[in-house]
This record gives sequence, C-alpha cells and structure tokens, in this order.
Amino acid sequence: MQLKNEILYGTAYYYEYLPYDRLNEDIKMMKDANVNVVRIGESTWSTYEYQDGKFDFSKLDKVLDAMYAANIHVIVGTPTYAIPAWLAKEYPEVMVENNGVRTLYGERQKMDISSPVFRTYAERIIRKMIGHVCNHPGIIGYQIDNETHHYGTSSENVQKAFQNYLRNKFNGDLNKLNHEYGLSYWSNEINSWDDFPSVNGSINGSLNAEFEKFQRNLVTEYLKWQYDLVSEYKKNDQFITHNLDFGWKGYSYGVRAEADHFDIDDNLDYVGIDVYHPARTLLTGAEASFAGDEARTGKNKSYLVIETQAQAYRHQVPYPGQLRLNAYSHIASGAQMVEYWHWHSIHNSYETYWKGILSHDFKPNPVYYEVAKTGKELKKLSPEISNLKINSEVAFLVSNQSLTGVDQFPFSDKRDYNDVYRALYDEFYKLNVRTDITDEKHIQLNKYKLIVVPMLYAASDEFLKQLNEYVKNGGNIIYTFRSGFAKDDLKVRTTVQPGIITEACGVHYEMFVNPEQDDCKLAPVSSELKDVTDLQLHDWIELLIPDSAKVLAKYSDPNWSKYAAITQNKFGKGSTMYIGCFPSSEVLHKIIQSYVDKIQITRPSEKFPIIVKNAINSAGDTIEFYLNFSSTSQKIKNIEGDVELISGQNISSQHELSLAAWDVAIVKKIS
Amino acid sequence: MQLKNEILYGTAYYYEYLPYDRLNEDIKMMKDANVNVVRIGESTWSTYEYQDGKFDFSKLDKVLDAMYAANIHVIVGTPTYAIPAWLAKEYPEVMVENNGVRTLYGERQKMDISSPVFRTYAERIIRKMIGHVCNHPGIIGYQIDNETHHYGTSSENVQKAFQNYLRNKFNGDLNKLNHEYGLSYWSNEINSWDDFPSVNGSINGSLNAEFEKFQRNLVTEYLKWQYDLVSEYKKNDQFITHNLDFGWKGYSYGVRAEADHFDIDDNLDYVGIDVYHPARTLLTGAEASFAGDEARTGKNKSYLVIETQAQAYRHQVPYPGQLRLNAYSHIASGAQMVEYWHWHSIHNSYETYWKGILSHDFKPNPVYYEVAKTGKELKKLSPEISNLKINSEVAFLVSNQSLTGVDQFPFSDKRDYNDVYRALYDEFYKLNVRTDITDEKHIQLNKYKLIVVPMLYAASDEFLKQLNEYVKNGGNIIYTFRSGFAKDDLKVRTTVQPGIITEACGVHYEMFVNPEQDDCKLAPVSSELKDVTDLQLHDWIELLIPDSAKVLAKYSDPNWSKYAAITQNKFGKGSTMYIGCFPSSEVLHKIIQSYVDKIQITRPSEKFPIIVKNAINSAGDTIEFYLNFSSTSQKIKNIEGDVELISGQNISSQHELSLAAWDVAIVKKIS
Amino acid sequence: MQLKNEILYGTAYYYEYLPYDRLNEDIKMMKDANVNVVRIGESTWSTYEYQDGKFDFSKLDKVLDAMYAANIHVIVGTPTYAIPAWLAKEYPEVMVENNGVRTLYGERQKMDISSPVFRTYAERIIRKMIGHVCNHPGIIGYQIDNETHHYGTSSENVQKAFQNYLRNKFNGDLNKLNHEYGLSYWSNEINSWDDFPSVNGSINGSLNAEFEKFQRNLVTEYLKWQYDLVSEYKKNDQFITHNLDFGWKGYSYGVRAEADHFDIDDNLDYVGIDVYHPARTLLTGAEASFAGDEARTGKNKSYLVIETQAQAYRHQVPYPGQLRLNAYSHIASGAQMVEYWHWHSIHNSYETYWKGILSHDFKPNPVYYEVAKTGKELKKLSPEISNLKINSEVAFLVSNQSLTGVDQFPFSDKRDYNDVYRALYDEFYKLNVRTDITDEKHIQLNKYKLIVVPMLYAASDEFLKQLNEYVKNGGNIIYTFRSGFAKDDLKVRTTVQPGIITEACGVHYEMFVNPEQDDCKLAPVSSELKDVTDLQLHDWIELLIPDSAKVLAKYSDPNWSKYAAITQNKFGKGSTMYIGCFPSSEVLHKIIQSYVDKIQITRPSEKFPIIVKNAINSAGDTIEFYLNFSSTSQKIKNIEGDVELISGQNISSQHELSLAAWDVAIVKKIS
Repeated sequence: MQLKNEILYGTAYYYEYLPYDRLNEDIKMMKDANVNVVRIGESTWSTYEYQDGKFDFSKLDKVLDAMYAANIHVIVGTPTYAIPAWLAKEYPEVMVENNGVRTLYGERQKMDISSPVFRTYAERIIRKMIGHVCNHPGIIGYQIDNETHHYGTSSENVQKAFQNYLRNKFNGDLNKLNHEYGLSYWSNEINSWDDFPSVNGSINGSLNAEFEKFQRNLVTEYLKWQYDLVSEYKKNDQFITHNLDFGWKGYSYGVRAEADHFDIDDNLDYVGIDVYHPARTLLTGAEASFAGDEARTGKNKSYLVIETQAQAYRHQVPYPGQLRLNAYSHIASGAQMVEYWHWHSIHNSYETYWKGILSHDFKPNPVYYEVAKTGKELKKLSPEISNLKINSEVAFLVSNQSLTGVDQFPFSDKRDYNDVYRALYDEFYKLNVRTDITDEKHIQLNKYKLIVVPMLYAASDEFLKQLNEYVKNGGNIIYTFRSGFAKDDLKVRTTVQPGIITEACGVHYEMFVNPEQDDCKLAPVSSELKDVTDLQLHDWIELLIPDSAKVLAKYSDPNWSKYAAITQNKFGKGSTMYIGCFPSSEVLHKIIQSYVDKIQITRPSEKFPIIVKNAINSAGDTIEFYLNFSSTSQKIKNIEGDVELISGQNISSQHELSLAAWDVAIVKKIS
Repeated sequence: MQLKNEILYGTAYYYEYLPYDRLNEDIKMMKDANVNVVRIGESTWSTYEYQDGKFDFSKLDKVLDAMYAANIHVIVGTPTYAIPAWLAKEYPEVMVENNGVRTLYGERQKMDISSPVFRTYAERIIRKMIGHVCNHPGIIGYQIDNETHHYGTSSENVQKAFQNYLRNKFNGDLNKLNHEYGLSYWSNEINSWDDFPSVNGSINGSLNAEFEKFQRNLVTEYLKWQYDLVSEYKKNDQFITHNLDFGWKGYSYGVRAEADHFDIDDNLDYVGIDVYHPARTLLTGAEASFAGDEARTGKNKSYLVIETQAQAYRHQVPYPGQLRLNAYSHIASGAQMVEYWHWHSIHNSYETYWKGILSHDFKPNPVYYEVAKTGKELKKLSPEISNLKINSEVAFLVSNQSLTGVDQFPFSDKRDYNDVYRALYDEFYKLNVRTDITDEKHIQLNKYKLIVVPMLYAASDEFLKQLNEYVKNGGNIIYTFRSGFAKDDLKVRTTVQPGIITEACGVHYEMFVNPEQDDCKLAPVSSELKDVTDLQLHDWIELLIPDSAKVLAKYSDPNWSKYAAITQNKFGKGSTMYIGCFPSSEVLHKIIQSYVDKIQITRPSEKFPIIVKNAINSAGDTIEFYLNFSSTSQKIKNIEGDVELISGQNISSQHELSLAAWDVAIVKKIS
Repeated sequence: MQLKNEILYGTAYYYEYLPYDRLNEDIKMMKDANVNVVRIGESTWSTYEYQDGKFDFSKLDKVLDAMYAANIHVIVGTPTYAIPAWLAKEYPEVMVENNGVRTLYGERQKMDISSPVFRTYAERIIRKMIGHVCNHPGIIGYQIDNETHHYGTSSENVQKAFQNYLRNKFNGDLNKLNHEYGLSYWSNEINSWDDFPSVNGSINGSLNAEFEKFQRNLVTEYLKWQYDLVSEYKKNDQFITHNLDFGWKGYSYGVRAEADHFDIDDNLDYVGIDVYHPARTLLTGAEASFAGDEARTGKNKSYLVIETQAQAYRHQVPYPGQLRLNAYSHIASGAQMVEYWHWHSIHNSYETYWKGILSHDFKPNPVYYEVAKTGKELKKLSPEISNLKINSEVAFLVSNQSLTGVDQFPFSDKRDYNDVYRALYDEFYKLNVRTDITDEKHIQLNKYKLIVVPMLYAASDEFLKQLNEYVKNGGNIIYTFRSGFAKDDLKVRTTVQPGIITEACGVHYEMFVNPEQDDCKLAPVSSELKDVTDLQLHDWIELLIPDSAKVLAKYSDPNWSKYAAITQNKFGKGSTMYIGCFPSSEVLHKIIQSYVDKIQITRPSEKFPIIVKNAINSAGDTIEFYLNFSSTSQKIKNIEGDVELISGQNISSQHELSLAAWDVAIVKKIS
C-alpha cells in the first residue's frame, strides 16, 4: 500500500498520562496547529489490561472517537514494550536476564522477548487491543512494539536455544565449530554439546559475535511475529510500521548494534524511525539525513519519522526556525510523516524533562507556534512534496556483524565502528551527494556508481568476490582500514591483507601500528591534499605496500615513510580507493570530493551549511530543497527551477535565492 | 536542661583501641591541655558484649572512674552503630540489604536499622550498658548511635513496610496513587497491592522520593526509640544528643540526604554535629558556619560539636593557628562544646591515617600544643562566651525532599542541590550576614526579614501560598531557578511556572535551556552588575518573562536576549528576588549584597576573609568575634566595644584591632 | 643443572591453534631464522584431554617429533592454567570465587588453585601428559603452569583455610589476634573462632594483608606441588621453570602483588619471566632490566625470558632495530633464553591482535627478518655470551607485604608502591649502576655496598634492626618516605617515626601533609641540587626533624620551611639517605648520583640513552654490552676492551665506538 499525497504531521499523544482530562482542549490546539496525525497506545498495557485478563479499553475508544471526529489520523501501537507490574510479579521470568542479572521491574524494554510466557501474554493483549479497535475508521496504521532491541537476553533458556542454533548451523559437528571459531585457544574446545558453557563468560570473538547475531535474529523474529498477529486484523489501506532507533551517543548516531534494521525492514509495510539530534549551534542536519537515507533504502520508498524532538531536554531546545527546518529536512530525505515526541510534557517519572511540544503548563509557547506555522505550510505543500522519489548514485554498505567485530576487537580507546561510518557519511552529506544506506544482504550493487564501505571488518569470501567483480565491471568502491580482514564469523583471513579485496585495491600490508604514540602524521603525495592543514591521524595506521595502486598519501614517521596511507587503484573498468588510516575530516573531505568528481557522481555546487536535496514528486516534477543549516543568511546562485513553493514566488531572472538563518526554500522545476 | 557556663573542650577517646594501656598518661596529657570532656563508648559493642549475652564493662568502668577522678566530663555513647561479628554471624539479616545486595560484615553503619532482630539486640546492649553506668557521677550526657543514615535499607521487609505506609497515606486507594505518581507512564500502574514491585527498580521519581522520605523517617524513628530507651536511665542534669553529619564531598557540604536533621533535632536535648572541612590554603570557615547555623537553629540554642578534625588526613593537617581559629569559629556560631576526633591516631584498620590530636607515637606535637593553648584560653573565657544567644534576620529554607527531587531530575552533570545551596550560603557568609537554617516543616517565617530559598523544587501548594503571604505582609524572599516547579510529591505543576510563587515573583517562563552548549552568558541590566567580569552561566537557564518584575539581568544569546535571567519584584509590603540561572559567585555576591542592603539587613562593613559574628552572652553583654581566615595580617577599624577578651586589653581609643594570620579577637561590649 | 653455552632463541608455538596444518612450513621458517627453541603445551588441556578421562596426545607427539628432527629444543608446559569446558561444567566449584562472585567459564586463569577437585584433575592431566612425553629426547625442560596468581580466590573453603592458618599463627589465641590486628576498632572483635566473618568484607588492613599473604602462599604451594609432580618424570639434564609475570600497567611494571616471586624462585631450577614493555619512541629498556635483575637475583644465575613481545599490539610494534636491541638487552641482564610470544598471530579469540613474529598471513615480514638476523648473530655469539656471571654492588629491597600495605593505606590517588620503586630503579638504570632485586626474606645484606629500600612500609622489628646493624658495620641504605612505619602485620609502630630506622637515619617526624594542596615545593639546601629546575613534590611529605642527619633539602611553604625533606646521615661505619617526600626524576637522579659516587659504587661514565652492562663469561673474559636506546647515533669513547664481538672487529686504537640508532655493540676484554 502507499500513503496518499498528504504529509502526515503530528505527535505522540498519551491521554493515559494526563494529569487531568483535557482531550478536547488538546485536540483544539492540535487542529489550530494543523496536526493531522497522532500515535497512541504503545506503553499503555497496564492501563488497558489493568489486571491479568481484565481489560478496559474505554480511554482508547474515547481518544479514537475524538480524533476521528476532529479528522486527525491515528496510528495505534501495540503496548508490549512496557509490561505491567502484575505480569512481572506473577512471572518473574519475563524480566530479561542480562549477563546473569535479572533486571528489576520498573523500566520499559526490560522484558525477555524470547520468553514463552511473555509471548503468551503479549499475544493476548495484542489480539484484545487490536481486535477491539480494528474496525475504527480513524486508524491509518499500526505500530508494532517500539524501539525493540534484544536487551542482552541471555538466560539459560536463551543459551540453550543458541546452542541448538549452532548445532543446526554446524550440522552438529563440534570439531568444525572448534576449528572455525578457534576454540582450542585457551583450552576452550567444546567436545560435547552437554559441555557448552554460557556465552556470557566467553572470550571468543566468533562465538560472541554469533551470539549477538542470534540475539538480533530474536528481535527480527519477534517483530515478524507481531507483524503477522496484527496483519490478521488490519485493513488493506492500513499499514504496519515499527519505530526503529539508531546507534546512540546521546542522540541518533550510526548503526544500531542491538537490532538488524535491514532484516526488520523486510517485514514492515512502512519503515518508521526515530531521530534525535544535537540542537542550536550544534545542529547540522546530518542525523536526520543518515537516518532518513537508511529508512528510505529499507523499502526503497517513503518512510515515517515516528519520533523526533520538539523541546526535549534543555540541550535540545531549538533556536527559532530550527524545528521547521528539521521538518523539511526529514521530508527532503523522503519522509512522508514527521511526528514529534510528544504532545505534552510529562508531569511524573523518568522523562519528565524530555519535553514535548507543550510544556507542563499546556500553554502555547514558541515551539508550539513554530509547529503551527510548519503545519500550515505542510498542509499547503502536501500535494507537491508527498511520496517523493529519490535517486542515489552512491550507497553506503554498513554491517552489523562488522560493528560487532569491531566491538570485540576495538581499534581505539575512544572511537568505534560508527565513528568511522559517520566520518565518511558526514563528508558525503556536506558535499550534498545523496546516498542510500544498506547492508551486505540487501544491497543491489549494480544500482550504484559508488559503494562506500566503512570498516567492513567481517564479510564472507563470496561477498568480497562480488565486490571485486562489481569493480571489475565498472563500479567504484571506497574502503577504509580494517576492511576485508576477517571472514563473516570474525576468523581472521590467513591470506595477505586486506584479504580478497587486495585484488581490487592493488595494495597489501603486513603490519599496522598506532600513529598517536609516535605522533605519526599523514604525508600528502597527491595534489588534492597539498593544502591540507590537519594531517593528524588517529588510532590505527596500516603500513600499505602498493602493488598496482597509486599513492595519495604516505606517513611522516621516518621509520614508516616508505609505506602508503591512502591509495587509489584502477581495476577492470572500475576503481577503488583504500584509506588505510583514520585521517581528519579535512582530508576525508578532499579525497572524497576529488574521487566523486573523478568518477562523475552528480552533485550541486553548494556545500554545507547549505544542504541541497532533490527528488521527483508524484507529478513527475523535480523538487529541490535548499536548507540553511547556519545562523547567517546565505545566498544561492544559479537556481534552476520555476517556483519557490513556500512563498509561491517565481524564481527570479537572476536565478538567485536568499535564505535567512535556519530557513528553507523549495524550488520546483516543472518537468 | 541547659549546660552551665563552661565551654566543653575535648576529644573522642577510645581506651578500647589502645595498643597498650596508657590511660593515666593520656589523662595527664589531657589535663595539661585543659581538655575537660571526652566522648567514649560508641562503636565498642564487641568489647562490652563480647559474645551473645556475655557482658564485661570493666574497661568502661575504668575509664569513667579515671576521668571522674581527673575531673574530665564524660559523654557515653550507645555502641550500636557498629555491630559485633557474632551478631552478624548468628543473624545474617541484621546486615543491611541495599538495592538487592546484602552488605558483608566488616564496615560500621551497615546494619539494617529497621530489623527487629537488630532492635532486640540493640535494646539489650543499650539497657545493659547505660543501666550499668547511669549512676556514675562523671557522666554529663549520652550520645545515641552515631551519624545514623538509612544505609539504603530496602530489603523485602522494608518494601512491605513501605507499601503499608503508602496504603495508609492513600487510604488504600491505588487509583489515587497511580494518578498522583503518574504510574500509567511506561505501563507502571499498580492495580492490586499484591502487585507492588520493589521500589529498587522503579523509574518513578515520585515513588522513589517517597521511598527515600520513608527511609529517612526510619532514621528519625530509630533515634527516637534510642532516645526513649536512654531517657529511662538518664538523670535530669544529663543530656541526650546525637552526632549528625552533613552532606559529604570529602568534607561537610550541605544538606544530608540520608537523614532528616530537622525532624531528628525535635527528639534531642542538644543537637550534636560533626564538621570536617578543607584546611590550610583552602580553609574559609564556611563549613563550620553553615553546619553551626543549622545545628543552632535546630533547637534555637547552643549546640555541640561532637567531632571535628585535629590532624586528620594529610590534606587536612592545619597550618599553625588554624586549629585554634576553628575552635573559636564554632563557638561564634553557638557551639558550647568543641570535641576533636580523636585523641590518639589509630594503629590499625580503616582510619589509621585519620589522625587525632596525637600522632601514633603519643608524643606532644604542634597540634597538641595548639590544643593546649586553646584549652587554656577557653578555660579563662568560658564565663564570657558560653550559652550565647544569637539572632538572625535571615533564614535559609532547605529541603530534603527538594534535594531528592533534584537527584531524581538533575539540572547538571556536575552540580547538585547542595551546590546551589552553598553558592548562596557562601555569599551570605562572606558578607557576614548571620543566617538560620531550617526546613519547610519547622520554619517560623515571621521571625525573619529575609528567607533564602535555594532550589525549592518540591513543595506543597499550601506552603508556597504561605510564602506568598509572608511576602505580601512585608517579608522578603530570594528564590533560585527550579523553585516552585513540582508539588511535594515531585509531580510537576500544571500551572504556569514557577507555579504558585509566580504571583509573588512577578515573572513566569515557558522554556529552559542549557547555557553552556551555546556559550550563553549573563547580560547585565541593573547597575549593581555593571562592573562584573565573570558572566559565565552554568547548567540551566530559565527564559524568564517578567510580568511585574524588574529585570536585573538578561541573556547574551541573541536568540534568548529578550528573556530575563534575574528579576526583582515588589509584592504587597515585601519583595522577592528570582534568580533564573546559576551565575558566578561574583554575580551572586553583588546581587545579594545589593538586596540585603535594600531591605535593610544588618551587616558589618567587614567582609571575608575577616569573619565577624556577634552574640549576647549570659550576662547580656554583646560579644563580637573577629576571625581572620587568611594568611596575611589584617586591620579592623571602627571597633565598638570595651575590651578584647583573649588579651584582656581595653579597646584603644583608635578603635582599631590588628589580627595576625589565622588569628582571632573577641570584643566585649558591656550592655 | 646448568644450561650449556647456547643462547636459546625462540618462540611459543601453538600447533593446536593453527587454522591449517603448516607444521613443516613453520619449522622451515624457524630454521631459516635460527630459532632453536620452542615452548609448547601450556593452555592445551582441552585438546589433550578432550573429555573427562579421554586423552589424545597425537598433536603433541607430532610437534615433538618434528622439532626434534629439526634440532629445535622443546620446553613442554603443563596445560593447567586454562581448564577445559567439561571440567567447569562437571564441577562448577573449580571456577574461582572472587569476592563472592563465581567467575564464568571462558577466560584462562580463572580457576580456584586451592580447589581439591581442580587439583585432582590437574594432577591427572599433568601425570598423563608429562608421563607421555618424558622420554622424548627433544625436551630440554618443563614449564609448570603459567603466570600463576591467586586470582582473588576467597570462597568459603578458602576462608576456612585462612581461619585455620590464623588459628595456627596465633596458637588459637583470639585475644592476641584481636589485639595485634586492632579488631576492637569499629566493634570488629572476634571472640569465638565460629564467629569469624569472611575477610571479603573486612576493613582491617592487618587482616586483609594477612589474607593476601595467605593467598600468595597458595600460589607458592601450588607451584611447588606442580614442581614435585613434574620432578617425578623429568631427567637430570632437564629443567623445571615457571613463567613469572610482573606488576602490570599495560606492560611489565614493578612488583607483582598476586604472587610471591621470591618464594616461588626457591622451588624452580631456572627462573622464567615474561617481559612486555613500551615500544618505539617510548622504549627505554628499563623494563627488561628490572625484570631481568629480579629474575637473575632469584637464583643468582642466568634466567629465561619465557615470553617477550614480537609485534604484539599496534602500540608495541617495534621500530626497525628495536627487536634485536631488546634481545641483547635481556642477555646483558643475564638471560640465557629469549623467547617471543609467539610464532604466529592467532586468527580467533581474545589475543587476535597480540601479534606474533608472523602476521596472520604467515608470510615473512620485517619483524621476522629481524628475528632471523638476530638469531644468526646469537648463534655465532653463544659461546661468548652464555651463562654470564653478573655482579652487583647494589640491591633493591622490595616487599610484597609493603606493597599490600600501601594498597590498604594509599599515599596518593594516582601513584602506588611500584611508582616509588620504579622512580628509584629508573635512576639507577639511567646511571648504569647494576642492581640486584630481592626481598626481606632472601636478601644477603653483606653482599652489597648499598641497599635501596623503596617505601618499606611493613617490616618486622628484627629486620629493621638488622638493617641498622648493616649500616653500623659499613653498609649504606637509601630509604624513602613511609619506610619503617608499620610492623610486618601493618600495625603502626607506637614509637617515634620512622620507627626503628630512626636510629640509623638520624631523623624523625611527627606529621606528614599533602604538598600539592598548598603547592609546597622542594627547597634545595645541598650543592648537588642547586641547579635543579623541577622542584615539584607529589602526594606526601614528611615534616622531618633532623637529629644527627645532614639536610639536603627542605620545603618551600613558610609554614613547613623549618622541616627537612631529604637527609643523609652517618651511622657507625656506614651511611643512610632518607627521602621524606616524592621528588622529581631530576632530583632523584642528582641525589642518587651524588650518593653512589660518595660511597664509591662503580659506574661507567656513560648514561642513558647509552646503556652499559658488563659481565664475566664462561671463559672468564669481561663482556661489556653497549646498547643505544635512542633514535640518534651515539659515540662512545674510552672503550676498554679487545674486540667488538658482533662485527668481529678489534677495538680501534682510538678506543671509540659508534652506535647507530637502536644499535648494540659487545666488547670483549680478554682476562
């Protein structure tokens, strides 16, 4: 199914949490702000099944009826991500046991998603709740669970299930398992399935990575199970989505280790995400962009921003203009919905200071007024900016297994897989080169001119050969250090490194060292690096020996100065760039810009802080978003297009646009 | 009862810990130093009940007899704060269970004060020990337990008791509890008392705060129980005290979270405290002052310094002169006793390096000689400086519940409630404005010209209305940011903020942000701030919108520059100052000085490092203490008074005094 | 037994861990590199006893046969330091219980070495494995276990055994124990053996230190037990060694707390050690030197470097030349074997990035080629540099009990016992003064001109009197602060401090303070300190009062300026230096240089970065090693000797040598 040409703009709404009943006042304020969708129901289990087997959906009905009457769409969530006290009391085993510790009841997302007891009770509340509402005309879709992770589930039952999984994977052959995972090391061989120890104590990277993969699979399977359950009730014009969250460093940051987004996406109608990001002087838009790129790639169509910040915490309160800018930034990445978390700030409990659109006083405030302004614009613009088609010539190839591998075998005390991924991503973002983001299992190599591969630490022989083949046939790949090093089960290759991709990269290495210890810097060779000022290297340098590759940069330490740091290679009809170190943003920017230009990737002349993203709308017209991520006004020249949609003004004959601080323009070029 | 006009000057003494018997030598050295009181007995349970039901008080008798013979008063402590090994072995449940972990035997203050078994055994040793000594003529008073906290007690029994407490508080109405505490959030509703989960896992601030209050109540009740027990034995001229300790950041610092001093004070004859503080270049006297202010306010009379440092740890060893200065500083705050911890340094175990008056060699040393000098002076001065009456025009209103609230919902990664309290207190201290310190339950508003209210995060509607009324009738209040925000159960108010006090403050706000992220500074408006150099703001700024208030300062960020930061308001016959941010010490000093002068609070012209404190002695004369908290000599002019008591010299016609580094003068003005 | 005049040069080799069988290729590469010894077998239990009672030594046989055929010596390790999964599954109690937590199976060195079950199974595998191979002609020696520590073992059984140990030590007299350990403090008296609590909760330093000593004794006893077992099988020309590791701060650093090397050495034929150290710009050679000094002193003969780094982690990869330099540095300290950890990098599991001589690709690489170069040289030089006799005029006296004491009662937040030890050691190293290293129990005082005593916090009266006597008879001692303070059971002395050594040091003190709080610096008095620029003091200063001592330096704080900081004293025929503070490396260097010259310790004129070490070889000739620990070439003048052994060149008539960066020369002077 596909959503109609109406940008969904709204908020999570928790009638259940209100300190006093103000449903009608809230709806009036929503209508005034052109809010047209609310998400309700997730985390309300204790309200709707207030005791084991005792149900009361009257509040749910009331909200649904009132929203329907107000013509506000509703997304109903299954309430399972926060379990009621009575369930934890009756069956303590539903609380997740993480690394030998059973979590206490209280926080959400602390249940064992693999527990049969949890599943039994979850199924009943889902069937009761969705069955109760499924004929209501106000519902446009369902959300299953919320931000589901594996929560570290590793109880004895989970260990048993994992052992069975391994037994199956290895056809019961322990010798093979011992050999593949190198269990003879430190006398860890397992020579009877009965001897299998808990993985919680394991120091074997392969075993640990396989267990994390198994845990991620539990998430995929659990969400598929919810999808199938809800599918029994949903109508054809309703969608099922899930709210995926990303790697977290105080805000959305990179690949999420505890769930496999790419597999989960396969079993959804629409991909839903939440995006939280730095604000004010720290706002760049990069988080909305990478999250949106991944969400869009997931099903190769529009996606839903299920949650993003309104006021949020005090470090996230936006400057005037930023909330509106962010909304457009999501849409420019392909979002068909922008939904804030949440309507009103909560008066008790954990997220009291994670503020919503309204403060605790429920009064209009600057953020509310900006929502209203944005809502009004979106209502007008919906026909032009809905269900956008977006084309990328470049894809990022990210890898949960490599992330796990890098966690098992870190390259840094301070940095991780996502830092490498983001270091590359952010330069593409600043260069206004549109990217898709996907994984080894889902990528369609031939769709892209360029594949960007941050630290593909763990990958199968077969896949690496496919990547070589892709290059040979005319594709282009950027690899970073540590790519190709280990097989998909983290066993290090016994070949010359970087393993199979050596062939396409025309380079190999025997040793790697820590550059910071000796203050070893980058020594530029290639002309595009000649004016670089920040030559600092971090964490890891590979002492590259070019076979056929051209050297872009070497190392400054006289002991390593004969080795290459960054190389490019022609292979068949295509080319590769191999970055054997972790250079500065300045260096990355220059070599990426030079490389994408060389292989003729399309990009506009503007760079960050002007973000430019284009798309094709339902009418087939080209829509170009111009987003000013800065506190100074900016001039954009050589605009091609017919009309600026927000103002409705025709593009001047000077083909120029002025953008105020944190402002946005949308230019339509009629096809 | 009231102590006679004799300054008690002494030390804790542990005959039981001595490496060899030197009672007579110790008493001789004490006499030489004019020590006239020792505290004994606390933490000696294993000595006096050496096995279950087997008692031997011979050491206690020996010390009592010897001290009596030497005319040294004795305070006997109940020995309960450190339990014997046999009790923990026999009844493991007497060890406190804190957050699911039963503490191992070894450290003191690790028992469960609510355990019936502990209470049974504690009662027996108290009755045996106090009964054994109560007729001894050398005893002037008793100390019950020591530095009692709740130790995080949260075993299943405590959880049950807490549930009963809640059931009582809410008349068994779970719907009311769910509503008041907002338990529907994250599906935490409790719809049967049988489902009540352990609070240890709770993420609900209201529930957690109520549990901490319940835990503090356990301390109050436990000490009351000991008070009543000991009262059965004590004579009319003996007192019962307790040794209260303060918030701790390596030294006494602010309000103590784990016990409610103000409630405990109600059930004591004399308030006793311990005070530990920075030394040498870091010595300011502020800790002795705030601790003394609280202790004196507790029963509105003299108090006892039960413990303070002699040599202590190597960072606490005083410069020559400082030990004596500190002794006078306690007395100037109203102390009738100054007792060091402790006589001799310990030769084994945990506090081996927390040194006493004597080092491990028991020899006279510079600290001992300074004790002796001070003791001699105090003996002479006792009639003049005993049982001082102290009057304050200003009171600090502090709040355990607000402290808990701010712990549940921090405003900073680095600072806490006590930092805000101390930031204000320290400026009053430097300005030589005498303050009382009390809480919502005990304050008599009408006694004061000014109430200073650091971060009153949690308070009842009724109380806030009383504060408004107090202002209307001519009182004055200084509020900081986050005051008035939540009700007494931490539920955030649904009114415009800062809630009920908005009326008296003439200001409100819709949003608050983190100033450090954008480097947003204070922008002075009012003249008293015009020369300020440190405009840095920390952690939290409220975007204040004045209703009737006058603006003293705004914010520098152009996006927030229309909002006020600090305001003053006239309300009825009184006035308020609202500080919506956390400014520098320099700013606080200036606005407090300006405000106290405006409302005509009495203060001397001297400021820190000269500390001036005055009082009325038993004869009705005015006693003025001049304390030089600096390493340079200071001149004080315009002295009013008749005689400097330590030197015995008449005040010169120049009305001038010279104070050497770390020196003290006491001027008497005969009434 | 004594090893023949052949430097053993080799590597740990794990045939069991290989990803594919390449035994013959590996042996060929070893032979090409002149590797003549491998260490095998430790941590292979699960391979050789693959199920309870099921043995298969075919891999072991294969390696032994192939090595023998290639004329590569083999050291066979008992495999006990890593237990198999089946054993942990069958008997969970074999996993160590550390502070109440039973460790999960996975990591090595996590078993309870005192468990009877572990011992039973360990004995069986040792007897089976060593019995199986003991007649093989390729074996030159055995290693028992590996890097054995006590692993914190503290289960109930261990507590019981410790109580019996104490009962024995105190002849059952609890009063004596209570008194000696000061258990009356905090009511910790134990008045019945049945009441003895777990030491895990103890806050008593004496008890804790005794328990740690007891735990160290368990290690000694366990290794003696293995020694005796293996001795039943070994031939007369085979040795038994153990691989001792040192204090660890990311590399070998000082005394190891968790095992008593000096006691363990008594029960070995050869002392074996592992040494890991900083690399590249951070390489100084100090670690190889102190570790070697201790190992050599252990049995007063050559020792074995069982493990040292080849490539290791990326911060440990050597610059060209450094691996070879390090090999000679070990030999110059008396090593008869230098063995790398390990041959090939591991392809799975924990130490995947702790790389060996070969990278994961098994190809020759710069490190391999440097091994080969070194191996070739060593083969040639073996007759000249084997079984070297080394004489030291100076001994370091280190103390496990003092280390524990300082852990119990730290003098610093940042520094520990080993920092004080290393601060002194490193200056002797830089001055090229050869030192022995031993402990209170093993030292032969009269062998030495100078004893260096870092922080001898805990020592018996008897021993301190011996040290006084040693000085009186003409010996010299350097003491640091905190020496002499406590008795051997950590009970602080009741005498004037520094206790018994006051007599020999001619100095005492009453107080100590923290210099950093007041920025109190050293104030030089003595001429050798007159040009010092770094006068910073750290952590702790004792306010020394000279009795007969001469003052070298005082303190800068005017309040403490009358006290001494560093003193020297003549006592009888000898002298002492007492360092009452922790001064800079610059200060230590100057006072040590001045002192060793004054007491006529022999030292060459070269200093670090030129390291000079001499020895007598089997032929009675003097061998002088010149090691250049710098990246610049160095000239050495006034060489006395006949021939440079590596080049074979006679010493020029100029008596000069040139050393390239990280290069080495060995000069022989024929006797």
